[in-house]
Amino acid sequence: MGTRSLVATLNVVVGGWLGLHEVALSEAAWRHLDPAPGAHAEFAHPEPAQSASVLRRKVFGGRLDGNDFDALMRDVVADRLSELELAALVTACAGDRLDVAETIALTRAMVQVGERLDWGAGMVLDKHCVGGLPGNRTTPIVVAVIAALGYRIPKTSSRAITSPAGTADTVEVMTPVALDLPAMRRVVEREGGCLVWGGNVRLSPADDVLIRVERPLDFDSDGQLVASVVSKKVAAGSTHVLIDVPVGPTAKVRNESSAEALSGRLHGTAEALGLEVQIICTDGRQPVGMGIGPALEARDVLRVLRNQADAPADLRARALELASALLGMTGDDSAEQARRRAEYALASGQALAKFLAICEAQGGFREPTQAPYRHEVVADRDGIVAALDNRRLAKVAKLSGAPVSATAGVECAARIGHAIRRGEPLFIVHAATPGELDYALAYVASQPSIIRLEESMT
Amino acid sequence: MGTRSLVATLNVVVGGWLGLHEVALSEAAWRHLDPAPGAHAEFAHPEPAQSASVLRRKVFGGRLDGNDFDALMRDVVADRLSELELAALVTACAGDRLDVAETIALTRAMVQVGERLDWGAGMVLDKHCVGGLPGNRTTPIVVAVIAALGYRIPKTSSRAITSPAGTADTVEVMTPVALDLPAMRRVVEREGGCLVWGGNVRLSPADDVLIRVERPLDFDSDGQLVASVVSKKVAAGSTHVLIDVPVGPTAKVRNESSAEALSGRLHGTAEALGLEVQIICTDGRQPVGMGIGPALEARDVLRVLRNQADAPADLRARALELASALLGMTGDDSAEQARRRAEYALASGQALAKFLAICEAQGGFREPTQAPYRHEVVADRDGIVAALDNRRLAKVAKLSGAPVSATAGVECAARIGHAIRRGEPLFIVHAATPGELDYALAYVASQPSIIRLEESMT
Repeated sequence: MGTRSLVATLNVVVGGWLGLHEVALSEAAWRHLDPAPGAHAEFAHPEPAQSASVLRRKVFGGRLDGNDFDALMRDVVADRLSELELAALVTACAGDRLDVAETIALTRAMVQVGERLDWGAGMVLDKHCVGGLPGNRTTPIVVAVIAALGYRIPKTSSRAITSPAGTADTVEVMTPVALDLPAMRRVVEREGGCLVWGGNVRLSPADDVLIRVERPLDFDSDGQLVASVVSKKVAAGSTHVLIDVPVGPTAKVRNESSAEALSGRLHGTAEALGLEVQIICTDGRQPVGMGIGPALEARDVLRVLRNQADAPADLRARALELASALLGMTGDDSAEQARRRAEYALASGQALAKFLAICEAQGGFREPTQAPYRHEVVADRDGIVAALDNRRLAKVAKLSGAPVSATAGVECAARIGHAIRRGEPLFIVHAATPGELDYALAYVASQPSIIRLEESMT
Repeated sequence: MGTRSLVATLNVVVGGWLGLHEVALSEAAWRHLDPAPGAHAEFAHPEPAQSASVLRRKVFGGRLDGNDFDALMRDVVADRLSELELAALVTACAGDRLDVAETIALTRAMVQVGERLDWGAGMVLDKHCVGGLPGNRTTPIVVAVIAALGYRIPKTSSRAITSPAGTADTVEVMTPVALDLPAMRRVVEREGGCLVWGGNVRLSPADDVLIRVERPLDFDSDGQLVASVVSKKVAAGSTHVLIDVPVGPTAKVRNESSAEALSGRLHGTAEALGLEVQIICTDGRQPVGMGIGPALEARDVLRVLRNQADAPADLRARALELASALLGMTGDDSAEQARRRAEYALASGQALAKFLAICEAQGGFREPTQAPYRHEVVADRDGIVAALDNRRLAKVAKLSGAPVSATAGVECAARIGHAIRRGEPLFIVHAATPGELDYALAYVASQPSIIRLEESMT
């Protein structure tokens, strides 16, 4: 007979809510404890977490070693740290407060406390984007191209941390992603690739716990970002990983020097954990594709895979660039050959067929739907688009309900250099409820320069 | 018609707990909103806190200015920051991450958002201990002596932050401390001094909010400690403040250099805010008095005020040292005269009479009671006490239920240099419930050297 435990906040109720010796569990606690009928429950003060002193040391600026991070991550996955302590941990590691040695130690500790997949001999490809660029949903296309060409790419993705949509949120619009490990393995064995949510396969589960507080706090850091990415990839059994680092003034990585610092840390940590990585810095000045939000991004992905005339050209071009670079890492092709093979896989419909087959294997494909409430935000004068603010566009999408409301988000076709006339739409806000639409539009009204127009030279 | 609002977590319940369009409020929310019968309630997403970007900047290592801290503290007192954000704020300011200019700006902002008392012309004396030394409950004695000698000392104290008892917790065992501002003013006008809890008079209410997360996190920092102390004293209208800084390896301030850093920051901040301070570094190697915990400390205070034979000599000596130093700050006496006047006030019973009069004015005096569950922790061999661990003794007292259970705590007569024989008590754990007693004793069993004995030389 197994026993399960949980550290939780005890709420005391008065009045007739509960009888004497009765307790009620939250849905989350119920799912975690999963008690059988007649099961026995005990309630006690929690043992103070052994890693609390380690956390304290880090908060006061100390350096932590491998044993320290092992203790911390064991307590993190066992839910022995409170939300406040998790927030303190994330804050204490923010900015440049984790050095490279600590990042490596944290990464090892995160791998240690979770499952680790073994795909047998041979290359296991993977790609990752550090994020911060709304709509940059290349992953489903890259996985479809790479798997269509016969390579193994068992892709696990996260849900949104601080963005309006993670890859897992977007793919979930089209097919189930919450597969467990055996199901994921069956999909990969059949199709060579998969597109599943990493949280359910317990790869680096400590990362999933940390993300729970990073999301409401709306910040992460280089050290934790690298530990998160590398631990997930090592745990997933990947051997060759391409990492997309969008660089732009309002992207997550703002300039070349930040990109270099992040690249150095990614390379150093990946190397220490035996992972081959290539980092590709891409244009992060403006959103990619038309949609920002799960369903809107899914629509863009499908348009590219279906080679539709209205497919966003930037998303297509970026997906092909990444797929080619990843093929290049295998050593099987020259850069030129890799490029031609990737393009053919996409243009021929092989990638679409592979994508649909993967969805089928994961539980079936479904078409994205559209939000019932939409509002066009229009230009108040003629002008040329000079800049788009990624962060504020993402914030509009989040305020409209994304990613929790899958159809919520922002549709934005404007790009730097486009001419826009007074009264023409700058972007369209989509929402599942009128309240969320109002909420997003109130923010839009308070932020006049989300898309900055300059007077045309004519 | 006034409106009140609150940022809170929305818990969704299923089943028959609530009808359609029904909500339930927590007791805390109910008290805060205090709705009249038939009152109208609206529920909406919170506006994102304007200071969230300021917080983010600090988390990533930026320096904040006066406007930044004003915005932060306004949001803190308006409950617009979540508990996670408060934890991030406290962590981002921990260690030496607030410089002196930031500490001054934070202190000003904290004064700004609360009430500020005005006692008219003349000196207003005050004393404060930075804490970290269990049982060091000199404040009630110092206030009684100073007020008995005719000086004005309107003392506001905090509840425990990370310790088993704050002065407010201890005094509350003997008399009500949750006085509002008019009540506090009446007490001071009648008796010259008071001993009230600062939280109810809204002096530096931002500090009270920050303490709510510092307590469960169990850490604070030099910058926040100084801002907390100085903002409270400025808001209380004090002009001359004596600050007790106990120094010892297991006290809050561990060595002379830390004491100097803290003193410098206290002096600089106090001077910037127009407050005269004197800092007195005291022996912080071991607890003071016999008791650790509200009721046990109250008993010690009364024994000293009553000049009982069993009064703890160390507590008496420290209280007289502080009272003399504070009298010295007035410029009315030489050090020698100050000393004699303080001793006479205590020995003659004037201080006791003043203390009882203050309690009477605050709502009546009551005698401390004793906890029903007690356990002697005995020495397992003969030896001489070489060291006592303040932090772990405090932790035992906290695990036994202090300060929430007023009678809980630790009674410890052992002092460095005392000879103790096998089987004799090192200390006694007091608890209000058997569960808390067990909980504290389990910790004691896991920490064999809370009181370290060395072999005697005989």
